[in-house]
Amino acid sequence: MAKDEPPKDEGGRRVGVPSTALFTDQYELTMLRAALRAGTAGRRSVFEVFTRRLPEGRRYGVVAGTGRVLDAVENFRFDEDVLGFLREREIVDGETLDWLADYRFGGDIWGYREGEVYFPGSPILRVEGSFAECVLLETVILSILNHDSAIAAAASRMSAAAGGRPLIEMGARRTHELAAVAASRAAYVGGFDTTSDLAAGFRYGIPTVGTSAHAFTLLHDNERDAFQAQVDALGSGTTLLVDTYDVAEAVRTAVDVAGPELGAVRIDSGDLLLVAHRVRQQLDELGAVNTRIVVTSDLDEYAIASLAAAPVDAYGVGTQLVTGSGNPTCSMVYKLVARAHSGDPGAPLHAVAKKAVGGKTSIGGRKWAARRVDAEGYAEAEVVGTGPVPADLLDRQLLVELVKGGEVVAREPLDAVRDRHVEARAALPMSAIQLSRGEPVIPTVYI
Amino acid sequence: MAKDEPPKDEGGRRVGVPSTALFTDQYELTMLRAALRAGTAGRRSVFEVFTRRLPEGRRYGVVAGTGRVLDAVENFRFDEDVLGFLREREIVDGETLDWLADYRFGGDIWGYREGEVYFPGSPILRVEGSFAECVLLETVILSILNHDSAIAAAASRMSAAAGGRPLIEMGARRTHELAAVAASRAAYVGGFDTTSDLAAGFRYGIPTVGTSAHAFTLLHDNERDAFQAQVDALGSGTTLLVDTYDVAEAVRTAVDVAGPELGAVRIDSGDLLLVAHRVRQQLDELGAVNTRIVVTSDLDEYAIASLAAAPVDAYGVGTQLVTGSGNPTCSMVYKLVARAHSGDPGAPLHAVAKKAVGGKTSIGGRKWAARRVDAEGYAEAEVVGTGPVPADLLDRQLLVELVKGGEVVAREPLDAVRDRHVEARAALPMSAIQLSRGEPVIPTVYI
Repeated sequence: MAKDEPPKDEGGRRVGVPSTALFTDQYELTMLRAALRAGTAGRRSVFEVFTRRLPEGRRYGVVAGTGRVLDAVENFRFDEDVLGFLREREIVDGETLDWLADYRFGGDIWGYREGEVYFPGSPILRVEGSFAECVLLETVILSILNHDSAIAAAASRMSAAAGGRPLIEMGARRTHELAAVAASRAAYVGGFDTTSDLAAGFRYGIPTVGTSAHAFTLLHDNERDAFQAQVDALGSGTTLLVDTYDVAEAVRTAVDVAGPELGAVRIDSGDLLLVAHRVRQQLDELGAVNTRIVVTSDLDEYAIASLAAAPVDAYGVGTQLVTGSGNPTCSMVYKLVARAHSGDPGAPLHAVAKKAVGGKTSIGGRKWAARRVDAEGYAEAEVVGTGPVPADLLDRQLLVELVKGGEVVAREPLDAVRDRHVEARAALPMSAIQLSRGEPVIPTVYI
Repeated sequence: MAKDEPPKDEGGRRVGVPSTALFTDQYELTMLRAALRAGTAGRRSVFEVFTRRLPEGRRYGVVAGTGRVLDAVENFRFDEDVLGFLREREIVDGETLDWLADYRFGGDIWGYREGEVYFPGSPILRVEGSFAECVLLETVILSILNHDSAIAAAASRMSAAAGGRPLIEMGARRTHELAAVAASRAAYVGGFDTTSDLAAGFRYGIPTVGTSAHAFTLLHDNERDAFQAQVDALGSGTTLLVDTYDVAEAVRTAVDVAGPELGAVRIDSGDLLLVAHRVRQQLDELGAVNTRIVVTSDLDEYAIASLAAAPVDAYGVGTQLVTGSGNPTCSMVYKLVARAHSGDPGAPLHAVAKKAVGGKTSIGGRKWAARRVDAEGYAEAEVVGTGPVPADLLDRQLLVELVKGGEVVAREPLDAVRDRHVEARAALPMSAIQLSRGEPVIPTVYI
């Protein structure tokens, strides 16, 4: 489903793709400047992405955006425009500018597979290399993972609630125009089937859908003219919007114009439960027994669940999806967990961690993670450790190699990611998909 | 402050700027296709952007993103890649593809000035032209206004709470990497002073700031080494982060290394009220009486207000800013409010509106808006009408011409927008800036 690998220049940077180097907080560059001057910039370092908590009441998180992270790392280059800006603003000095001009990430990245679930403390991504090359990536990596994972988590809950009925992502108008494209991708990862967003279809190959809005009905002299115009252009398999004026009259007109082979009707307002039942009965009486009912008004996972017994064939979800259904971001952080005491490439790593009294603290050390399962194969605990991996967990490890010596080694099609999420969620205890607030469905155990 | 006008090609499209044409819901194109076939695509039409309600408890909204809308309209062109995609997916037919290939918005856009405040029903933007040319712009216009206005509204509340103390936008890592750039712009409109986001500095000329994170301290063998490295590179006017280990010890070390001319210390965790008081006292005792205190941990407008009496010199705000402090989107819609009965350019406009029973309804007709003021010049009502403008409101009208016959006529520097917001907010009744939940601070009156 993903587009073919785009062309790259000799330096490995994708042709025609903008640099991601300025999706960076200024302090990454001032830290680099100071570390270069102090001679500490080359110290081998390990950074980890994790979250201290899930959004309140949520039982699992969904890793999404990893594929976008790989693209961003590949295109993290300082071209002349960017260097000129940094020079002019005096954000860094000449030595640092020279260093940036040659920048290309040459380290290693390991991480959870995209689509996998995660819990508090899960080391979702691990970035290793010199301090200098790793510290610069903090902001762009967090931007992508915090945004995309928030949307995928909401999508996953909605898809569990929909129980197999198709879900349409249609939130583009409710979020930033490019965040919308990433949101559509994340929704697909989380179980959505289609999107209204053409840019998401173009960029990621996600199937696109859409037929008409109220404006189309209002443009015409009456509802019949509008329906006729739509059926003439799009065929009787199209979806007619039936709530501009009176729903019952619109349904009658729709079947009259398109015939009983009318594809679907869409309801975008009112009491959806009640209206769906009435419309189904009316369609059946008119002989349009295969005409589907699509509902699209202010849905979230709870509204979807409440329509489980209603004669609804597909849900279109906008606002609540692209805003993460109450949690528009995750609280993932990017922390230095280990580093060498010198710039010597062979110098051993030492665990480091913030240790403020009464403040946020972290667990130092380069971590592995594995998911322990019970006798029936259901997840039982997220096990995170810094020492040797116990034998029984060796084949249950969650971190895989994504970038090796600066080369992306684990790009994959979006459909594989989507399938993985279905599997990963199905391997959690049943209570994972309860919509009510609760604790993470499995504990995180540190060993 | 805004960058110079970028170069344009012969067709008026900005050189090197990607097309915005696919930031579009598919149904815009299928409606176009059906309307072209039905012969109704050329009917003169008026679309309006408005919201039925403010986020719960909010007393005013802030118009932001207008400048970005103008850029998006200018770059809304269907190039070969895009047309190829639409052809391959069979989203539109050949006649429609030909029409799209020549697409350039040639109509008129009027709107509230960016930075202005708004209320339920305010006609924030009015787009006029043929149905075909106007309907296509729905999604991208709403994406921009819904996102940017949500962030600006949160920023405005925070800046009111900060009472003149500087505000630093530092939320890039908590939102999509390009949404972050727009969020930084919107935060600036709403009263923020600086940003950590280099891309926002590059694109919009917003002043950027940032010095170091905990990772920098952890990289070094001890805190003193880290502070020394930072001061060596950035000078004693820099901001040292003092909560990696013990705050009191860090402050002592910081002043010891940088001297009493140390620029600032940053506190990123703990009880900020308590810690700020202790640190201020300690700095004063060490003779660092001009060293400023910057706080940056999980702030929102309420936390900022609670620190009003604390010795804090600047606030850095991340998550709660870029997620709109609980309201990450607005509920702006783009509705057809009037259209001609034929494609004749001189045909008169007729008001139209959705009229579903029990559902969302709209008020039809091409609207003007004005802000009525009391004897002291404070806003008293948002007056919206479709008939002639009353004489006493003629010079208080809120809609200005932004695009005339397809040409942008009202581009302006971001600093002018920022200044306008300060003025517009100051002209509201005092209760506008109360943080507690309430009704819109002035009523919307339809005449």
